[in-house]
Amino acid sequence: MQLSCPMPKLDFDRITLGHGSGGTLTNKLLQTGVFDLLSNPYLDQHHDGAILNMKGQIAFTTDSFVISPIFFPGGDIGELAVNGTVNDLAMCGAKPEFLSLSFIIEEGMLMTDFWQILVSIRNACDVAGVQVVTGDTKVVERGKGDQIFINTTGVGHILPSAQIAMNRIKEGDVIIVSDVIASHGIAIMSIREGLEFESDIKSDTRPLNGIVEELISEYGEAIHLLKDPTRGGLASVLNEVARDSGYGIHLEEKSLPIDEQVKGACEILGLDPMYVANEGIFIAVVRSDVAESIVTHLRKNPNTSNASILGSIVTEHPRQVIIKSRIGGKRVVNMIVGEQLPRIC
Amino acid sequence: MQLSCPMPKLDFDRITLGHGSGGTLTNKLLQTGVFDLLSNPYLDQHHDGAILNMKGQIAFTTDSFVISPIFFPGGDIGELAVNGTVNDLAMCGAKPEFLSLSFIIEEGMLMTDFWQILVSIRNACDVAGVQVVTGDTKVVERGKGDQIFINTTGVGHILPSAQIAMNRIKEGDVIIVSDVIASHGIAIMSIREGLEFESDIKSDTRPLNGIVEELISEYGEAIHLLKDPTRGGLASVLNEVARDSGYGIHLEEKSLPIDEQVKGACEILGLDPMYVANEGIFIAVVRSDVAESIVTHLRKNPNTSNASILGSIVTEHPRQVIIKSRIGGKRVVNMIVGEQLPRIC
Repeated sequence: MQLSCPMPKLDFDRITLGHGSGGTLTNKLLQTGVFDLLSNPYLDQHHDGAILNMKGQIAFTTDSFVISPIFFPGGDIGELAVNGTVNDLAMCGAKPEFLSLSFIIEEGMLMTDFWQILVSIRNACDVAGVQVVTGDTKVVERGKGDQIFINTTGVGHILPSAQIAMNRIKEGDVIIVSDVIASHGIAIMSIREGLEFESDIKSDTRPLNGIVEELISEYGEAIHLLKDPTRGGLASVLNEVARDSGYGIHLEEKSLPIDEQVKGACEILGLDPMYVANEGIFIAVVRSDVAESIVTHLRKNPNTSNASILGSIVTEHPRQVIIKSRIGGKRVVNMIVGEQLPRIC
Repeated sequence: MQLSCPMPKLDFDRITLGHGSGGTLTNKLLQTGVFDLLSNPYLDQHHDGAILNMKGQIAFTTDSFVISPIFFPGGDIGELAVNGTVNDLAMCGAKPEFLSLSFIIEEGMLMTDFWQILVSIRNACDVAGVQVVTGDTKVVERGKGDQIFINTTGVGHILPSAQIAMNRIKEGDVIIVSDVIASHGIAIMSIREGLEFESDIKSDTRPLNGIVEELISEYGEAIHLLKDPTRGGLASVLNEVARDSGYGIHLEEKSLPIDEQVKGACEILGLDPMYVANEGIFIAVVRSDVAESIVTHLRKNPNTSNASILGSIVTEHPRQVIIKSRIGGKRVVNMIVGEQLPRIC
C-alpha cells in the first residue's frame, strides 16, 4: 500500500529562500517531483486554483499543523496533515474528497526531509481516498519558522444519510469512544525534551473516514454527533459537547480504553490521559438502542478494535462532565486550561 | 466602510502557548471577540467544519501569507490574506464566497496587534463580499515563528459566462494590465531593512473580484485568461503564460504603467519593476477586437484606472517573452530566478 518513491536527483540539497520566490526556483522545486508525486487531473492543471464539480451540502474545514518533531513514532507531519483534515471532514458526516496543501518552510530544510514528507502525504491521500488539488509554498528565513508548517484545507460532500449536529443530542444518548486514548500525545512526549521510554508507543494518526462512512450508512440518523478529541484530549471535547448541547455528561472511568504502556507512561509523567491528544480516534453520541450494535461493528475494524461505551448524556449537572471513578467516587472533569504539550499537532 | 471596533477588555495582553492548546484558553481567545468580530451564520455554528450549499463548478484555492512586516504602508497581513485568496478565486473566473482562516501565531504576539489584524480581516471580507466560515489557531514557541502567519483557503462558484483557461489563448490576443505595477513590493521594501524613501508609496492590496465580475459579465468568453502577478512580478507571470500556452509574448516597454515615485524607487534600488511583486493588479489575455473597450471600461474604475494594453500573443519566439524598449531594441524577459524580496506576501 505504501508508495516507495526515490527522490529525483537535484542540484540542491536544502530549501532556500529563492524556492519561495514564485519564480524559476519555485517552479524547479515543484516540477522536480512534487507535481509528479501528487499528480491527479486537477493538480495537473497547474493553475492557482482547482475547479471542482460539487452539488449539495459541502463540508469545508481547515487545519494548520505545527507539530514538533516533524518525524515521530507512528507518522510524520505530512501524514498527520492529511489525516487531520480528512478526520475533521468525517466528523462533519462528509466524505473527504479534495484537499489544498500549503507549506511554510524554514530556509535550510533538508530536501530529503521535504521529500519524505511529500511521499507520506501522497500515501496518506491514497489510504484516505482524497486528492491534493491545489497548493502553495512559502519559505521563511532561518529562525523565523521551524522546518515546516503545513496547512491542509478540505472539502467533501455530506453523506446522504448523515444527520450530525449538536442539537440532535438527546437525554439518554450513549457516548462511544472508538479506540484507546492518549497514544498520540504520549508518542510525541516520549521523543521530545529528552524523555525516552522503553516502549514502542506510536501515534494513532490514521484516517477515520472509512469507518465513519460505514457507521453512517448502517445507522444513519441514530448517530447524533461525531467529534475527534485531538488537542486538549477527550476531556476538552466532552466539555465542548456539554457546554454547547446544554446537557450533562456522565462517564465511567472503568470504561476508558487505554493501552497499558500508555497508561504507565501517563503515570510516570503525571499526566491525566483524558487531557492527552489523540489523532486517530473519535467519540460518537448515538441513540441508546443502537449503541451496543455500533460498538460490536467498530470492534471488527482494526482501526477501532477497542471501541467502548464511555458514558451517557444526562439532564443532571447540565454543562458539566462528571466521571465516576473505579472506587465509586465522582469528580468533575474540566476542559484543559493551558498547554499540556505544546505543538502536538 | 471601515469597521471600527475596540478590543474587548482582556486579562492578558500577549498570546501564549496556552492559547493554542485547544482548551479553555483557546476558547477564551476565540470567544472574547474573535467569533463576534467575524460572526456569520456559518461561523456561528462553532463546528470544526462549515457546511455550505454549493452547486456546479467551484474554484478552490489556498495561500499562506508570511509577509514581513505584518503592518505596512497601505495594509496589513490580515487584509492581504483576504484579498490574496479573493483575487486567486477571481482569476479562476469565480465569485469568491467562503474563506477558511488559519493562524500560526508566535508566542508573545501582542493581543492589540492580533486584534488589529482581525479587524482588518473583517473589513476586507466586507469589502470583497466574502465570509470566513471556518478556522484554526495554532501557537508556536518564541523564535519558531514570526508574529503571525495566516493561511486563507477559498471557495466560490465559477461565474456563468466565465471561460478562463490557458488553452483558450490564441495568436493575436491582446494582453492588458489592470493598473500600475510594482507598488506592493516597493512599499514593503521602503520600510524594510532600514531603507526609507521620502514617499507615500503604498501597497496596492485590494480585492479584484468586483471588477473581474463586471468584465466577465460584459465580455464573457472574449476574456481568455486572467492572472495576478504577485510574487515574481509581471515578468514571472508572463513567462508562465508563454511557457504553458506555448505562444510567444510581445511587450512594449512604453506601455508599462508605473507610478513615477515607484519608478524612481526602483531606479535607486536597482530593481526592474517587472520583477517586483503586486497584490492588486491582474493581467487579462483577451480577444483583440474587445481590448480597447475593456481598457476603457477598466479606466472608469478607481481600482484599475491606469489599465493599459501591454502587448500581444504571437507565434514568433514561442515560450519567450520579448520586450521592445523605448528606443526600439528588443530583449528577452526571463522569469525571476531567486528571491528578490523575501516574504513579500
